Amino acid sequence: MLTLHVQTKRRTELVDVTADLVEALAQSGLKRGLLTAYVPHTTAGITINENADPSVRHDVETTLDKLVPADWPYTHLEGNADAHIKASLMGSSVTIPVEKGRLQLGTWQGVYFAEFDGPRQRHLWVQVSPGLEQG
Amino acid sequence: MLTLHVQTKRRTELVDVTADLVEALAQSGLKRGLLTAYVPHTTAGITINENADPSVRHDVETTLDKLVPADWPYTHLEGNADAHIKASLMGSSVTIPVEKGRLQLGTWQGVYFAEFDGPRQRHLWVQVSPGLEQG
Amino acid sequence: MLTLHVQTKRRTELVDVTADLVEALAQSGLKRGLLTAYVPHTTAGITINENADPSVRHDVETTLDKLVPADWPYTHLEGNADAHIKASLMGSSVTIPVEKGRLQLGTWQGVYFAEFDGPRQRHLWVQVSPGLEQG
Repeated sequence: MLTLHVQTKRRTELVDVTADLVEALAQSGLKRGLLTAYVPHTTAGITINENADPSVRHDVETTLDKLVPADWPYTHLEGNADAHIKASLMGSSVTIPVEKGRLQLGTWQGVYFAEFDGPRQRHLWVQVSPGLEQG
Repeated sequence: MLTLHVQTKRRTELVDVTADLVEALAQSGLKRGLLTAYVPHTTAGITINENADPSVRHDVETTLDKLVPADWPYTHLEGNADAHIKASLMGSSVTIPVEKGRLQLGTWQGVYFAEFDGPRQRHLWVQVSPGLEQG
Repeated sequence: MLTLHVQTKRRTELVDVTADLVEALAQSGLKRGLLTAYVPHTTAGITINENADPSVRHDVETTLDKLVPADWPYTHLEGNADAHIKASLMGSSVTIPVEKGRLQLGTWQGVYFAEFDGPRQRHLWVQVSPGLEQG
């Protein structure tokens, strides 16, 4: 398992970690199989979305803040209950196919660390599992 | 990795791909482990839900359209910002156990390609990883 | 594949299954790789969130009930359409890294079976896949 570091800058922020995953995959030596990127935090998640127009990331951030507002009445008193809920909505891992040592993302896909209680220093764990026949 | 083709017919549409995954699994030759179905698009996702009453699919579609309306003001100007957000809410992959060469779905479960910006011709990628002891 | 049993007590309820997964992992014998916990139901999901303050679980439950109310008009007539939608929002599986035979959760993370149509007797399936080099 490899540990990556992610520095977030805003409270709600999608941070592009695609290049970090590509590098982690190279380090792992996996040729065919699946790569899983796992977020070991409870106020952040991970998601795959468009890598071209940054306005998509902006819309994901603002829409999640609109769906689950920070100022709704919650029982959790640390002021980040909304962040926990958004983390569960996005999910704590993504799993991506690998072929010939390359991460198989769609043309317009990037992988985004989804910060909901930043800014913080975060971790991202990467684990790989080989496919049926190692190519 | 196997590539499946999915033709969607409406803007928001859950398309049953269970039979396609069963066939892909047979082609893969996996006996025990996990099958991952991965969506390489950013305005579509994938989800597991009820395979019996089609009204469930209908309710998932209309409720997602209600939660994240297409006509909210977004900064992404292609008219499909809502589709990107719905894709992240559903997720871009599902991972399902395999035993004795069979996809281990629950009795009422089917796998649905979740189109949010159709109609389009789409792809679905299937990758398998063996379990600890190959049966 | 191992089958765990989960007894839920309320309609919407996050049930901590972390200890059950730790035990299932020990039974599996996996030292390094990934563990997948899979929910074979369509009105329940699974999610990872804070294991310390129970108010977080409470806020996740009430906020999901607020986002997708049980009494909205749905076409599915069994009275649990909202539960199907919440299941898709949470997802039907989680995948967690394993190193040295230990489940690699973050410090504050627990794994929660997410019941949305309880109380019921439920199942949770656990499958493991080895990493690239079995340690």
